Amino acid sequence: MSHKILILNGPNLNLLGKREPEIYGHETLKDVEDMCLKVAQGLDMEVAFRQSNHEGTLVDWIQEARESFDGIIINPAAYTHTSVAILDALQAAEKPVIEVHLSNIHKREEFRHTSYVSKTANGVICGLGTQGYDLALQALSRLLSSR
Amino acid sequence: MSHKILILNGPNLNLLGKREPEIYGHETLKDVEDMCLKVAQGLDMEVAFRQSNHEGTLVDWIQEARESFDGIIINPAAYTHTSVAILDALQAAEKPVIEVHLSNIHKREEFRHTSYVSKTANGVICGLGTQGYDLALQALSRLLSSR
Amino acid sequence: MSHKILILNGPNLNLLGKREPEIYGHETLKDVEDMCLKVAQGLDMEVAFRQSNHEGTLVDWIQEARESFDGIIINPAAYTHTSVAILDALQAAEKPVIEVHLSNIHKREEFRHTSYVSKTANGVICGLGTQGYDLALQALSRLLSSR
Amino acid sequence: MSHKILILNGPNLNLLGKREPEIYGHETLKDVEDMCLKVAQGLDMEVAFRQSNHEGTLVDWIQEARESFDGIIINPAAYTHTSVAILDALQAAEKPVIEVHLSNIHKREEFRHTSYVSKTANGVICGLGTQGYDLALQALSRLLSSR
Amino acid sequence: MSHKILILNGPNLNLLGKREPEIYGHETLKDVEDMCLKVAQGLDMEVAFRQSNHEGTLVDWIQEARESFDGIIINPAAYTHTSVAILDALQAAEKPVIEVHLSNIHKREEFRHTSYVSKTANGVICGLGTQGYDLALQALSRLLSSR
Amino acid sequence: MSHKILILNGPNLNLLGKREPEIYGHETLKDVEDMCLKVAQGLDMEVAFRQSNHEGTLVDWIQEARESFDGIIINPAAYTHTSVAILDALQAAEKPVIEVHLSNIHKREEFRHTSYVSKTANGVICGLGTQGYDLALQALSRLLSSR
Amino acid sequence: MSHKILILNGPNLNLLGKREPEIYGHETLKDVEDMCLKVAQGLDMEVAFRQSNHEGTLVDWIQEARESFDGIIINPAAYTHTSVAILDALQAAEKPVIEVHLSNIHKREEFRHTSYVSKTANGVICGLGTQGYDLALQALSRLLSSR
Amino acid sequence: MSHKILILNGPNLNLLGKREPEIYGHETLKDVEDMCLKVAQGLDMEVAFRQSNHEGTLVDWIQEARESFDGIIINPAAYTHTSVAILDALQAAEKPVIEVHLSNIHKREEFRHTSYVSKTANGVICGLGTQGYDLALQALSRLLSSR
Amino acid sequence: MSHKILILNGPNLNLLGKREPEIYGHETLKDVEDMCLKVAQGLDMEVAFRQSNHEGTLVDWIQEARESFDGIIINPAAYTHTSVAILDALQAAEKPVIEVHLSNIHKREEFRHTSYVSKTANGVICGLGTQGYDLALQALSRLLSSR
Amino acid sequence: MSHKILILNGPNLNLLGKREPEIYGHETLKDVEDMCLKVAQGLDMEVAFRQSNHEGTLVDWIQEARESFDGIIINPAAYTHTSVAILDALQAAEKPVIEVHLSNIHKREEFRHTSYVSKTANGVICGLGTQGYDLALQALSRLLSSR
Amino acid sequence: MSHKILILNGPNLNLLGKREPEIYGHETLKDVEDMCLKVAQGLDMEVAFRQSNHEGTLVDWIQEARESFDGIIINPAAYTHTSVAILDALQAAEKPVIEVHLSNIHKREEFRHTSYVSKTANGVICGLGTQGYDLALQALSRLLSSR
Amino acid sequence: MSHKILILNGPNLNLLGKREPEIYGHETLKDVEDMCLKVAQGLDMEVAFRQSNHEGTLVDWIQEARESFDGIIINPAAYTHTSVAILDALQAAEKPVIEVHLSNIHKREEFRHTSYVSKTANGVICGLGTQGYDLALQALSRLLSSR
Repeated sequence: MSHKILILNGPNLNLLGKREPEIYGHETLKDVEDMCLKVAQGLDMEVAFRQSNHEGTLVDWIQEARESFDGIIINPAAYTHTSVAILDALQAAEKPVIEVHLSNIHKREEFRHTSYVSKTANGVICGLGTQGYDLALQALSRLLSSR
Repeated sequence: MSHKILILNGPNLNLLGKREPEIYGHETLKDVEDMCLKVAQGLDMEVAFRQSNHEGTLVDWIQEARESFDGIIINPAAYTHTSVAILDALQAAEKPVIEVHLSNIHKREEFRHTSYVSKTANGVICGLGTQGYDLALQALSRLLSSR
Repeated sequence: MSHKILILNGPNLNLLGKREPEIYGHETLKDVEDMCLKVAQGLDMEVAFRQSNHEGTLVDWIQEARESFDGIIINPAAYTHTSVAILDALQAAEKPVIEVHLSNIHKREEFRHTSYVSKTANGVICGLGTQGYDLALQALSRLLSSR
Repeated sequence: MSHKILILNGPNLNLLGKREPEIYGHETLKDVEDMCLKVAQGLDMEVAFRQSNHEGTLVDWIQEARESFDGIIINPAAYTHTSVAILDALQAAEKPVIEVHLSNIHKREEFRHTSYVSKTANGVICGLGTQGYDLALQALSRLLSSR
Repeated sequence: MSHKILILNGPNLNLLGKREPEIYGHETLKDVEDMCLKVAQGLDMEVAFRQSNHEGTLVDWIQEARESFDGIIINPAAYTHTSVAILDALQAAEKPVIEVHLSNIHKREEFRHTSYVSKTANGVICGLGTQGYDLALQALSRLLSSR
Repeated sequence: MSHKILILNGPNLNLLGKREPEIYGHETLKDVEDMCLKVAQGLDMEVAFRQSNHEGTLVDWIQEARESFDGIIINPAAYTHTSVAILDALQAAEKPVIEVHLSNIHKREEFRHTSYVSKTANGVICGLGTQGYDLALQALSRLLSSR
Repeated sequence: MSHKILILNGPNLNLLGKREPEIYGHETLKDVEDMCLKVAQGLDMEVAFRQSNHEGTLVDWIQEARESFDGIIINPAAYTHTSVAILDALQAAEKPVIEVHLSNIHKREEFRHTSYVSKTANGVICGLGTQGYDLALQALSRLLSSR
Repeated sequence: MSHKILILNGPNLNLLGKREPEIYGHETLKDVEDMCLKVAQGLDMEVAFRQSNHEGTLVDWIQEARESFDGIIINPAAYTHTSVAILDALQAAEKPVIEVHLSNIHKREEFRHTSYVSKTANGVICGLGTQGYDLALQALSRLLSSR
Repeated sequence: MSHKILILNGPNLNLLGKREPEIYGHETLKDVEDMCLKVAQGLDMEVAFRQSNHEGTLVDWIQEARESFDGIIINPAAYTHTSVAILDALQAAEKPVIEVHLSNIHKREEFRHTSYVSKTANGVICGLGTQGYDLALQALSRLLSSR
Repeated sequence: MSHKILILNGPNLNLLGKREPEIYGHETLKDVEDMCLKVAQGLDMEVAFRQSNHEGTLVDWIQEARESFDGIIINPAAYTHTSVAILDALQAAEKPVIEVHLSNIHKREEFRHTSYVSKTANGVICGLGTQGYDLALQALSRLLSSR
Repeated sequence: MSHKILILNGPNLNLLGKREPEIYGHETLKDVEDMCLKVAQGLDMEVAFRQSNHEGTLVDWIQEARESFDGIIINPAAYTHTSVAILDALQAAEKPVIEVHLSNIHKREEFRHTSYVSKTANGVICGLGTQGYDLALQALSRLLSSR
Repeated sequence: MSHKILILNGPNLNLLGKREPEIYGHETLKDVEDMCLKVAQGLDMEVAFRQSNHEGTLVDWIQEARESFDGIIINPAAYTHTSVAILDALQAAEKPVIEVHLSNIHKREEFRHTSYVSKTANGVICGLGTQGYDLALQALSRLLSSR
């Protein structure tokens, strides 16, 4: 049976392709979703792909993963650096987690160098643009199949 | 006339009893609510018991306490360490506040050692598990009766 | 054609006039809105005036400004000090931004001295009470007309 | 058989009721002792209640608890922030420990915000005045009976 | 009777219009003075407008305001970040103070983010170029008339 | 013509499979090399795979990449956190760089949370074990083909 | 009626005249006591002069001053930098306090630059050797007579 | 032959008696000068008593002390915390130096707790109001006579 | 003539063999004393072996060493990290000092990584259990014989 | 046509040759001026050589360089570490700047390790005594001729 | 069968006896080697004694110890404070490690107070000169025989 | 007899002229060597000019200077900020040392602002490009001839 993966996108990622393209590229979030569905299909995985600007909504969705998903890919965007609530939800989910960032956060402002999510994520992929989601799906696939 | 108490629970506390039981114990939040209702009854207090993963919702509820409640018990969970908005709402409420944490936050990660809520709370009880709610109700009862 | 301005108010500002009047004064948020509408009219500007306790809602509204407004005035209140999401939304909006604080945040607690919003705002006005909104409208008017 | 509890009070607590009553209240330490004896009786516990201004004496007494007591309630007062020796003694005692502070130390000077004792205490109660001792006895009672 | 306002400008502001125009704009300090006189006239205020590169001279002038002026507008430039003497003089003056910065100091180097003057100023306006003086005069006018 | 990739491994990675397998897994560095050759073949890339315990040797090899390679994958191991020389060499190489770590360095000791190499790397992959090399090759392949 | 003054000396001051005379001079503590008695007589004051190496004993003595003395001169020596208990005792004593140090502590090691006692002392005299006691007696005499 | 003493007063001390009397008292600087002349006469010393708001003028005067005075008493006021130039001038003077502060700077804002002048002063007297000058003259008298 | 050595043991070391044996081992302090006497005999040294939980008592004993002992071995336990008084006493003693810790303090909590005693000790031995005393005696023997 | 160079010397450099010769050497500032004139002549440059203890005067002179000089050599002495005003003046001057220090400031007290002037200077020469001025003139000559 | 011990010496230790003898003493590294061989013989141990200025070489040798030695004594010299690579190699070696320093590093510059090697060493001996090697051999002998 | 000077160049300086020419200029290291030989000849000095990417090799060469050279010029490049081993070697060499940096390191990233080498160098020259070597040779020539 195929694994079910929850892909979560944090605040302002709905602007992808419009906002600061020199940092985030020209693809839209819909493009990323399409790409993920295609990659997941190749890996025999199912994907739910969501975005919210609300920290609480992201926490709600992560909690949902406890029951209904096998793994989580999360690009927490701005909440990376400020949300202990998301960290706690991910720990409570007890599923493998891959953290993705489009840009290399370590080359940006000081306050973007620390991630609460990294304290619980299995793996972190950053700076590789939307390809990061593709790689994260591969990583999650292997993690899940090796269990 | 009996006092009305608002008991608020922050993010991920709806998972109580499932999430990391070695830290948080096996009781569910419903169990805690039932216990609180019973204790409150014994102290001739009325209790409204709520939980949210949304910082803004917690702020909304605290504002409600200005008009409709006599005291607040809050377990802010992850928002303890990151929410100035909750601190401001509590200060604006101008009601006695007891802060409760199930675990002893000072024995956990460094970033869990500071609390914005403690800057305004009358009292803080931590590390005593769900019994902390019972003790907080007693404390609030005495605070309110001594006014 | 007149400019359209979005004025956003962060958490607990709905309590204006009630909460800690020695810091924030006796005018209500409705009073401020009325004053802003009047000032804007004098400057031939249109104003939408909103308040939310929810970080995500503020982000949603700022995103709306990308398409539908010419400038933003924001009093981020508690989210000033904690919200990278609002900073990112403002940067993505690519509109002039004036940050307003009723009190002089530099005379209050240490943690209120830093502002994520100031990292992207064109100008900052603080400590001048509700007049700050009037001055911000004037500043935005000039910024927009000099473009 | 009833549990034996050691209640320890740190430096300057013998002045309780005289020193800065606006922070610490008007009850004397003798009043607190009487109240503790009464509460303990109701919980079928025995209490030894002591105070010292000497760090070394407090360490001696905590060591005594290894052999002769079932649990410790400690209000370490000024030594909270400076005594590693008391921390080590409590760890060596291998008994449940409840830390009590009359005032909410998190609302006072910066150097009172950290506690060596909290690194080992099971629970911490602060800001609830002398009632803190009552609550601590209840907490200890439950901790001991659940073993 | 009209209010008398002292407007003080710190080091290197005499170079305004020549020095780094991409940060400070093309108007000269004489232009700012003329604008201030005109704005003040409209508000029925008298203005004395001065500049010095000498910290001690700025302190001398602020002391003069104790006796001879009703309010102070100060752009302390570089001394913003280093002069406790100016802070002390402003506190001793016991007059309303508005702090003005042409650029948004929070978007520049780290050491420009802190201001001794903000510890005593009633209000702070920054990042709005020479218009900041205009707004400061308005703010001071209202502050003085509301006394 | 196929791209030539230099894969560099820092100190103690020659012990892979022997040293702390609970952190680093059971595969040897030879296994990783074989896997990389196979993956590279699939991507029509050529790979040179090397390891050294010597910071200077790693610098020498990176310099070599200026002339002879199209991209670099580097697992700097302990030199991640201490080597400015490797950072400088990578910047001088003017080739795309992917940084790989077997473990999630953000979950380990504090001093392993910062990386000099991340200041110049295009992308960073950590915590995904030896699969990180596979993903890095894919990322580099796409980066080079999109130029 | 003459004022009664308690002069307290902290750890290792009993070695005065023997220990590191290049820092502390050649007079013994007995010499200082004799000088203080003589100076006090001239100011019509009575003096009790004590030394202890025990923090708790110093706290005990300061508590005694609440009832039996009109002012305190304290050279806390090493406890200057580490004792919150002495600070609390001095605050509880509610008597004027002059802090004396033989050497200029600000010219010595970094950890000797901060004093808990200075947070409550009326005045501080340091670096003037044993004459500091003479000056402290004069200061205390004037403080007490001006009440 | 009598010793010649230079007494220097830093910025805003010319406002003594007017500025914040609850901190600095009601005596004027002229009162302090008169008192110093009288005390000095009794100690067979000559005094030059000066005040300036200009750091450079204070440096000029301290340099003058190299040739024309035997000792220096300095109340550096705000320059205490910011002037390395005054520190260097005092070190170059090669005369005994007593630093005086009217208030206890350790009980005020954090930035007033450090003193560049204390790094070279023989002694420091603070918190004793204008009597501090009297005591400083006595201390200097003894220092000079013991040479 | 044989050298006389004072061996001092700080707080909680009387619990040796009982307290946390996985850190401190199973030997009691009496065992250590016996071993030291035997080793000292072989080195033709005399040993006085003492323990106290009181900082002041340790200071008293170190002062005694000035007159009556040739060298000091000290395991300051918890006072290692908090006692300036012990540091001062050791400096005043003017005897060779060897600092011993049973556990490797650098592998434990952050606050155990700094030692006031190390600022004056000739040598430090840590992490070698009770054998550390044996080695310290050898070291002291050689230090004393090489004088 | 020869270049015109402004050489500025900060506070206390007028004491050169008298003040702490073990750090600053025995040459006077007049000696340095003569040497500079001679060296400049050999490089076909004109030199104006000045010294002031006043930060504001140094700022005035640097501003003069905007119009009347081709380059600046500055030994800011104590103002190196404290003057943002001099930094701003140098940036506004838009001329090449060489910073000179007689001593190696990195071997002295911690607070002398940072330089505001270095944030804008083209080059820095320190620790080479008065020869530093000679080298700075050579450096400036080459900088100007290469433009 | 006798144990085989690897004794490693870090950078500049080959200069022992020549470099700064007031810190490091007059014995050469050859003297230390001879002494170690003799001591080892007495303990029935074999010793390989090496020195290198190259961090990578030290790592190579430590890796060798995995296969060929029973324990390691290391004086990492300057690499103590900067080498994570050596720390990692020692952890990978899975042999008992004793860290030796000739001088008491805690009495020297601040940056010499921290040791990466101490994070894994069983024991640390410092400040006892070349005798430290002798004591380390004894300690290792006991550690190995008690396994 | 002419002095012999060792000129050492740290990691990546072999790329001079190729790597980031906007920071480091277009001259190659061979050009610098040629220039140095010519300058040295004019000063009657002999020069050995070397480069290495290996910290250990630089240490080896500095040790060689103890016996075979009269002075050292070192551009430590990246090792400036990370190598205590080079600092120790330079201190052990007991020869005059001039530190050279091509760029002004104080205008670059924060981590390039501190230099271990500056703690022992006689003089430091930075930001003057390859001319820095010329000036360093002159400085060394004068230092050596003044001995």
